[in-house]
Amino acid sequence: MGKLKEKTVPQLEALLRELQTEYKGWQEKGLRLDMSRGKPNTDQLDLCQGMLDTVSSKLGAVSESGVDCRNYGLLEGIPEVRKLLADMLQVDQEEIIVGGNSSLNMMYDCMTRALLYGVYGSDKPWCKEPEIKFLCPVPGYDRHFAITQHFGFKMINVDMTAEGPDMDQVEEYIKDPSVKGIWCVPKYSNPTGVTYSNRVVRRFARLAPAAPDFRIFWDNAYTIHDLYDEGDTLLDLFALLKDQGKEDMAFIFGSTSKISFAGAGLAAVAASKRNIRFMTRQLTNQTISYDKISQLMHVRFFGNFQNMKAHMKKHAALLRPKFELVEDILEEELGSLDIARWTKPRGGYFISFQTTPGCAKRTVALCKEAGVTLTAAGAAFPYGIDPEDSNIRLAPSYPSLEELEQAARLFCLAVKMATVEYLLTTSI
Amino acid sequence: MGKLKEKTVPQLEALLRELQTEYKGWQEKGLRLDMSRGKPNTDQLDLCQGMLDTVSSKLGAVSESGVDCRNYGLLEGIPEVRKLLADMLQVDQEEIIVGGNSSLNMMYDCMTRALLYGVYGSDKPWCKEPEIKFLCPVPGYDRHFAITQHFGFKMINVDMTAEGPDMDQVEEYIKDPSVKGIWCVPKYSNPTGVTYSNRVVRRFARLAPAAPDFRIFWDNAYTIHDLYDEGDTLLDLFALLKDQGKEDMAFIFGSTSKISFAGAGLAAVAASKRNIRFMTRQLTNQTISYDKISQLMHVRFFGNFQNMKAHMKKHAALLRPKFELVEDILEEELGSLDIARWTKPRGGYFISFQTTPGCAKRTVALCKEAGVTLTAAGAAFPYGIDPEDSNIRLAPSYPSLEELEQAARLFCLAVKMATVEYLLTTSI
Repeated sequence: MGKLKEKTVPQLEALLRELQTEYKGWQEKGLRLDMSRGKPNTDQLDLCQGMLDTVSSKLGAVSESGVDCRNYGLLEGIPEVRKLLADMLQVDQEEIIVGGNSSLNMMYDCMTRALLYGVYGSDKPWCKEPEIKFLCPVPGYDRHFAITQHFGFKMINVDMTAEGPDMDQVEEYIKDPSVKGIWCVPKYSNPTGVTYSNRVVRRFARLAPAAPDFRIFWDNAYTIHDLYDEGDTLLDLFALLKDQGKEDMAFIFGSTSKISFAGAGLAAVAASKRNIRFMTRQLTNQTISYDKISQLMHVRFFGNFQNMKAHMKKHAALLRPKFELVEDILEEELGSLDIARWTKPRGGYFISFQTTPGCAKRTVALCKEAGVTLTAAGAAFPYGIDPEDSNIRLAPSYPSLEELEQAARLFCLAVKMATVEYLLTTSI
Repeated sequence: MGKLKEKTVPQLEALLRELQTEYKGWQEKGLRLDMSRGKPNTDQLDLCQGMLDTVSSKLGAVSESGVDCRNYGLLEGIPEVRKLLADMLQVDQEEIIVGGNSSLNMMYDCMTRALLYGVYGSDKPWCKEPEIKFLCPVPGYDRHFAITQHFGFKMINVDMTAEGPDMDQVEEYIKDPSVKGIWCVPKYSNPTGVTYSNRVVRRFARLAPAAPDFRIFWDNAYTIHDLYDEGDTLLDLFALLKDQGKEDMAFIFGSTSKISFAGAGLAAVAASKRNIRFMTRQLTNQTISYDKISQLMHVRFFGNFQNMKAHMKKHAALLRPKFELVEDILEEELGSLDIARWTKPRGGYFISFQTTPGCAKRTVALCKEAGVTLTAAGAAFPYGIDPEDSNIRLAPSYPSLEELEQAARLFCLAVKMATVEYLLTTSI
């Protein structure tokens, strides 16, 4: 097809008519596909089907350490599960609380506690501050931004580079004491797939924010979620912070939502012993204990962290062909047109796609009208506003390979249509 | 022994020496018993052991309505479980959200949402109010008061009568617009065992608080937790409120913590459709969904509410002898002394004991020093302050009958000692 921007108006008009005809064909197929969320497919959930056999009336519900998981108690989680997830997040067993099934909920809880009570080192509850600002690397995770928007924080965009957030911007913004924290997905970042470089992590560890109770919300959601045998490596922020006695600055989150069951996994928050003590005192007002049967099922199924890591290779084997299929189709359909770029992540759940500025919303709408749901354009930005209207998040995990092929082809067609429409509008 | 208050000082002194000798004997036994919390015994947990067989790799994790409980989705709970718990709380399926394993956590969440966002009908978030007051029927549930204390609410004691909170006091206090709500355990109240009378519930339904966003936190924790075939009946507050179009005024809570597993049950909040819609919009910022494997296990094990109610008779058969044993020993040891009174509840988890004013703390301390842990004296009051130092909560569920007999005997001895000491001090 050649580079679109080099085409004349009549050429573009002819092309648009072709694309519209093709699009009508797709509309008639009546597709109903969803690439909007990082939702595991059934075959991934089946990988842990054996977990459902780990508790039974015969096997009982008493853990190896003697805890009757059916009864009250152990707010921080049973010892075995704390060990398992502490190993996953590279912290000590005393530096972790294993909560319910949702790390998002644990982040939300950390935020409500900070607002209503403050964090360790706060002068006052955050809700008593005249204004709170939060740094949001963009594009980022929409549900992070939804929390801070919900609570009325002023969200500040920080550009994502190929090695993580632009640390010049971060270092500048944290001079403002009303900046209380930053959202981070440091490994296989949602949606860019970027793993923060050593240089970036070291600069995080050296941050000296004006707010004494500044917190890095380090959502290590994809810590062992490699697509390839050779995974990215992320420097251990917590260890670096400890070296400088600054370990109170990070809240680290993780979950097994994409290791065991998205709808019944385990979530955890890890932090310094001081932070954990401070949190636990507040948590005793919130609940008596989290679901320990689920904790027991995970411990019995995985046994230890090595097994859990090995288990992730099975997920990779199912996910990798999906990512590669989408990437191949994008290359085949759009590679020569010079109208878009996209990421080729080595882990995580997303491909981040950049249309020609001004074309993302239209692309998503065209997909929608032909039966393929994508994440709303702009969703990866605070307030849902992508200043360039350019970013689209693709989530290839849920559809089957056959469905994915269709969805990806339609997506490429929609990108082309939206771009040609845009070029025609702007060239008039 | 005769009424203690009629004895002379030398008689009391002689008695105290006798009691002290007996007490030494108890101390030498080295007991380690716990009557502090309403914790089910292992034999109660065993009643639901079959629940652990309801999910397995063979049975899978797809609910009858076709929900794959292993995956994301259904924030309000799977339809089957909403039906089950809606029946338990006498509401419609659309009027309930089934959350994690802790109703306390759901109350805490309702409170944080109210503070940070307001409830349906609020002018502003509660944390923006200069002062918030909350009504606390006393004696009441310590963990309720811990939440409102944690958030700095001013807690106002309301006297519990034999038919529920003193509604004259409640009706007076709610004229103050800074009074935003009231804690209630309307059936087999913690710790008094009182079920609110029809008259009291009707007065609740007629309340016209000055605060437009006043909420009754109706913690129906023991709704089907009868000890006898003939259980207490509680008038349906929600239906009465609906009759007057005032159904937004109540948040109703319940859980299966003392039906299935204390450490892995299901909790729910029920409320008007407007409240539920308002809450759900906020909840989408908090989490994606709660643990649905646990929901599925409950649905498969109980099937329907009738079975759940039938199941409660098995709990009653285990609990009733424990309550009756303690009541018999109290009567035998203290009945004639005119120094104490106690409740004989027909359901729930507690016996509420009133010592001679000024003797509760000393009684609890004496028990502790001889190896029997009771709930801290004063715990059933806001700020832990029992103005009369008289109330002690006894929780007979966890110890075995043999242990309970020992604990109850020691408790009676401690009551006698504390009372004699007190009488001697005050008669000097």
